Amino acid sequence: MRIKVAILGATGYTGGELVRLLARHPQVQIVHVTSERHAGKPLRNAFPHLTSQPELVCRSLEDKKGLENIDVAFCALPHLASMREVPYLLAQGTRVVDLSADFRLHDPLIYRTWYGTDHLAPQLLPEAAYGLPELHRSNIASARLVANPGCYPTSVLLALAPLLKGGWIDPELLIIDSKSGVSGAGRSASQDNLFTEIEGGFRAYKVEGHRHTPEIEQELSLLAGADLRVRFVPHLLPQSRGILSTCHLRPRVVRSQAEWQEILHTFYHDEPFVQVLEAGNWPATSHVRGSNYCHLGVAVDSRTGWLTVLSVIDNLVKGAAGQAVQNMNVMFGMKEGTGLEQLPLFP
Amino acid sequence: MRIKVAILGATGYTGGELVRLLARHPQVQIVHVTSERHAGKPLRNAFPHLTSQPELVCRSLEDKKGLENIDVAFCALPHLASMREVPYLLAQGTRVVDLSADFRLHDPLIYRTWYGTDHLAPQLLPEAAYGLPELHRSNIASARLVANPGCYPTSVLLALAPLLKGGWIDPELLIIDSKSGVSGAGRSASQDNLFTEIEGGFRAYKVEGHRHTPEIEQELSLLAGADLRVRFVPHLLPQSRGILSTCHLRPRVVRSQAEWQEILHTFYHDEPFVQVLEAGNWPATSHVRGSNYCHLGVAVDSRTGWLTVLSVIDNLVKGAAGQAVQNMNVMFGMKEGTGLEQLPLFP
Amino acid sequence: MRIKVAILGATGYTGGELVRLLARHPQVQIVHVTSERHAGKPLRNAFPHLTSQPELVCRSLEDKKGLENIDVAFCALPHLASMREVPYLLAQGTRVVDLSADFRLHDPLIYRTWYGTDHLAPQLLPEAAYGLPELHRSNIASARLVANPGCYPTSVLLALAPLLKGGWIDPELLIIDSKSGVSGAGRSASQDNLFTEIEGGFRAYKVEGHRHTPEIEQELSLLAGADLRVRFVPHLLPQSRGILSTCHLRPRVVRSQAEWQEILHTFYHDEPFVQVLEAGNWPATSHVRGSNYCHLGVAVDSRTGWLTVLSVIDNLVKGAAGQAVQNMNVMFGMKEGTGLEQLPLFP
Amino acid sequence: MRIKVAILGATGYTGGELVRLLARHPQVQIVHVTSERHAGKPLRNAFPHLTSQPELVCRSLEDKKGLENIDVAFCALPHLASMREVPYLLAQGTRVVDLSADFRLHDPLIYRTWYGTDHLAPQLLPEAAYGLPELHRSNIASARLVANPGCYPTSVLLALAPLLKGGWIDPELLIIDSKSGVSGAGRSASQDNLFTEIEGGFRAYKVEGHRHTPEIEQELSLLAGADLRVRFVPHLLPQSRGILSTCHLRPRVVRSQAEWQEILHTFYHDEPFVQVLEAGNWPATSHVRGSNYCHLGVAVDSRTGWLTVLSVIDNLVKGAAGQAVQNMNVMFGMKEGTGLEQLPLFP
Repeated sequence: MRIKVAILGATGYTGGELVRLLARHPQVQIVHVTSERHAGKPLRNAFPHLTSQPELVCRSLEDKKGLENIDVAFCALPHLASMREVPYLLAQGTRVVDLSADFRLHDPLIYRTWYGTDHLAPQLLPEAAYGLPELHRSNIASARLVANPGCYPTSVLLALAPLLKGGWIDPELLIIDSKSGVSGAGRSASQDNLFTEIEGGFRAYKVEGHRHTPEIEQELSLLAGADLRVRFVPHLLPQSRGILSTCHLRPRVVRSQAEWQEILHTFYHDEPFVQVLEAGNWPATSHVRGSNYCHLGVAVDSRTGWLTVLSVIDNLVKGAAGQAVQNMNVMFGMKEGTGLEQLPLFP
Repeated sequence: MRIKVAILGATGYTGGELVRLLARHPQVQIVHVTSERHAGKPLRNAFPHLTSQPELVCRSLEDKKGLENIDVAFCALPHLASMREVPYLLAQGTRVVDLSADFRLHDPLIYRTWYGTDHLAPQLLPEAAYGLPELHRSNIASARLVANPGCYPTSVLLALAPLLKGGWIDPELLIIDSKSGVSGAGRSASQDNLFTEIEGGFRAYKVEGHRHTPEIEQELSLLAGADLRVRFVPHLLPQSRGILSTCHLRPRVVRSQAEWQEILHTFYHDEPFVQVLEAGNWPATSHVRGSNYCHLGVAVDSRTGWLTVLSVIDNLVKGAAGQAVQNMNVMFGMKEGTGLEQLPLFP
Repeated sequence: MRIKVAILGATGYTGGELVRLLARHPQVQIVHVTSERHAGKPLRNAFPHLTSQPELVCRSLEDKKGLENIDVAFCALPHLASMREVPYLLAQGTRVVDLSADFRLHDPLIYRTWYGTDHLAPQLLPEAAYGLPELHRSNIASARLVANPGCYPTSVLLALAPLLKGGWIDPELLIIDSKSGVSGAGRSASQDNLFTEIEGGFRAYKVEGHRHTPEIEQELSLLAGADLRVRFVPHLLPQSRGILSTCHLRPRVVRSQAEWQEILHTFYHDEPFVQVLEAGNWPATSHVRGSNYCHLGVAVDSRTGWLTVLSVIDNLVKGAAGQAVQNMNVMFGMKEGTGLEQLPLFP
Repeated sequence: MRIKVAILGATGYTGGELVRLLARHPQVQIVHVTSERHAGKPLRNAFPHLTSQPELVCRSLEDKKGLENIDVAFCALPHLASMREVPYLLAQGTRVVDLSADFRLHDPLIYRTWYGTDHLAPQLLPEAAYGLPELHRSNIASARLVANPGCYPTSVLLALAPLLKGGWIDPELLIIDSKSGVSGAGRSASQDNLFTEIEGGFRAYKVEGHRHTPEIEQELSLLAGADLRVRFVPHLLPQSRGILSTCHLRPRVVRSQAEWQEILHTFYHDEPFVQVLEAGNWPATSHVRGSNYCHLGVAVDSRTGWLTVLSVIDNLVKGAAGQAVQNMNVMFGMKEGTGLEQLPLFP
């Protein structure tokens, strides 16, 4: 028997990606999709690549009919909108994977600082599991509410977890230079994200501070066992998908490249989606496109002593919808990779 | 029990795409992959997006060991190389899906005219089935040797078959203006296909005559019941995947757009991979990316009387590897869409 | 002494391109630029690539101060807005190069049919010169009002003029399959033109009829000496700049490729901006990028008898701002190529 | 009277860019261009965007005829090839701007370490001026031999010079995360740089050490007045042109963003090609495309104390050919911006 799922906010890129993956998940049935702009119309009007799914018709968020018997709801809504819906869903007995930022930060004051608004459901924060299965699998398994990580944090945490947890690097000197494809900016009409503005126009943005910073710091602090801060600078790539994070680190010990690789290898030995590349190979966003994989590479610069860890994911898959499906699989006791088997699309 | 497959020429784009699809096909086991350049090395050295498949190790074509018990071989070799291998495979009792041009043309003289060399296995031409399941399904089912269609011909034949077979259009005035992504040019080092030469550099090529022309004419002539010729002009798009063919046609009758759509709809009613878009929607290559779908659109220009049929496919999937898998499914009595379920990757 | 120019609508792509060219024109001084959205602010706020031009400050269209002594105004406004401004400018004694569609069509009824609104200044239509210098140089030289051609029409007219004027081709069978970069769609926020929607997503649009059709027909009819119609199908390329038009034609006579080339060569012998490529070379949009050149290529398909003429321009230069500057040079008796000397930017 | 220039290696991207700029330089005449592959043929065969320059015909390097009366030669040859040619040119009395790496490093031992070969003309190293006019203008003015800086070093040195020279930042903690367009990799046929491999495939490369590192260190050490080392990690962008360097720095003092900007502003006050963006604007590669400008931005992260300086250039212009022309202008007492006036091409 298939579990019943709802996707709230199905006409954004994350929503569309959830449909792409869940429509082919063998233990799932999509029974409810919402879109305010396309309410009452087939989803394929908004997403012609889903032309083969004529049966999916969008509803408004306000139309709660049919939401009663949902086993799990994926909230692919903007922050603020999400925390307005989640309490209702939980009250219905529906488990929730929330893809917004609303339940990722444990501390509502930090939420307020970075998002400029009070949290509307602070009582739910203590129970929300941070949905990075590689770090929080058992919490996720039993959670009613899973906060799916941000795309940048996913790429950074997978790169740094083995090193911070092992105490191998200086937590005072963490520089993260990240680069993301444009799909991370969403699907709303915008001048800044027109093809003409982006093509050939690589640039940094939010250099003075990006909202994913406190999320990265929260999780890295947990790993390091002490409060730490990171310098995080995001950039916008002229490509639709993919994140590459270049992490510049100071090791506390001298190790060879092979030894650093071995540390990563050992940490992720049993993880289906994290792959440490062999020496001489550097991660490329195109090599994980459309898949739930994370590729890691490590280099040590013997001249200066700096250690560099490189990490790539598809921001819409391991950075959003794929990880959400992975979380659902964990929550419902399914094989963790179900529905996520497809290999990367290259070229 | 899974059937055993070999992929000859696994490190080109078509070969890599065959691996991507067949590695996830539930009734298939890849037991043999070849690459001259990477013989003896893991396939993932050539294709880092296949890092998760360390067990696939390339062999040389000359190393026939292990080829004895193959159920079906996919030849993703260049033309000429292919017709040197196919007779051996058939003699072993292996069925063959050949993705080169070598067995598509029924007439060896036409082959010689367009490919500039004598055919080395003309005795096999009569039995080779032309592998477009939508038109030749029963031949394919029983064939030892299936000639997988070219990418351009696939896009054109699916657009024109309903109209030519129905006698609706003038077979004397067929203008096909096609545009292809760069992956169609293969993976060999080349100055012409460097990123820097292609980005922002749309152009036509082989304007005086492209080798896919006789293949298109052969199949369209069969449909029309008479010899015909087409004007076919290919262009190169600054994108990796996708073909769009714009077919300019003279109708023999006056019909509305809705009626033309209905003709296409009816023809493809039971076809899982051909989708006729609703009025007002035009096919886009991004809406079939990574999938085996073909999207069709039709417009009638009442001012001039010209009919336009637009067709898009992913040249590496429905135009090559996906169609080859579809053919294999037909040959072995499997459900035709097995292993081809994944939805297009957008954006 | 420099002539004084105004640019109305300076923050769209065409306006920005006018600034790029005119700021370096040795006989011109930009004294007035307008933008409703950026009125009162430096132009470089809207266009950081013009950071080196801090002295250009945007005004509102309504602020007519400073417009009195303008020698020539470039209207880079949307249609409708343009014909509201032009009468005032002319009344001031300012000559006008209008880059909108408002004064291109001689017949106000045809304007109404295609633009869905009455023309507001039909009295000016008889005197408006159609600003393609290669065809209408002497009219332009003496005109108060020049209607700068559309980007598609420029590419098509330069390709077909020698053949239609010479009577070499059948005016009943003109098929024009054009492909344009995204900058042609303007700079307004839009979902359809987001990078993510365009990358890898080649498609046709307005297949049932595009507004540049009557403009093409008007000018081709003049050349042919008889009313004719064309089938014109535009497509959208995943690149910012460039138009390639593929013209499929029926010759009335049998000629070799070299002879067709010679016909084009002869026609454009003295034209500084139109270049007929040598045999075996096909025009590419990247080879005219940023320049005012048009490259032409011609192929004859001896099997079918179809003649193909290929034409590329940069839609923002020869298709808009560059041609406008060329027109201005003609109008003011300057050397026609002044300010347009720069060579194409490749890669 | 125009000075006579030669361009050695005219069919690579840097060579093509030199032709683009020098063909329009009012005080220069290109009298000699070389290409081994195209010797004896018009340059426009190799570069169709130069179709309008039919008079430029390539010669072989070995053909020294016509080289006698050259005023200045631009060597756009690979390293090693360059230092074989330069002594001959100097002996002829020709001044040289060398765009290879051969004369940038003052210490032949460092050259040997990074380039794996002995220097063939170490006697010339002491007199070679490092061709960054913003730092070494007077040396350049009188030099026979100017070593044009690498593209990455140009972007980094312009970003860091004011801060290191002023003693404002810690020279022990310099992390430079750079991203370059593909044209930096040259025009040779290559699988790695095919469009299909690059599109959507952002990645780092030479993470363990790139040859531009010692050049950066040499010049920064001069500025700091002490030997220093940098951690430099280059990445490859899916775009043809542009470099963005993100420099992560530790200030020695607490300053506001406005104060940091003011430091940069003051340093570059009289420089025509270096522009410090206003607060809230971040440099984008598209905003300097095709021009000789460098845009700088600065951000201070008050939470962590890190200072970030961002720098963009067009790698083929300010990072190569444009800077070479700027150097020539300095060497011959011309106005420094001559031939470099054109504004960036956007979009």
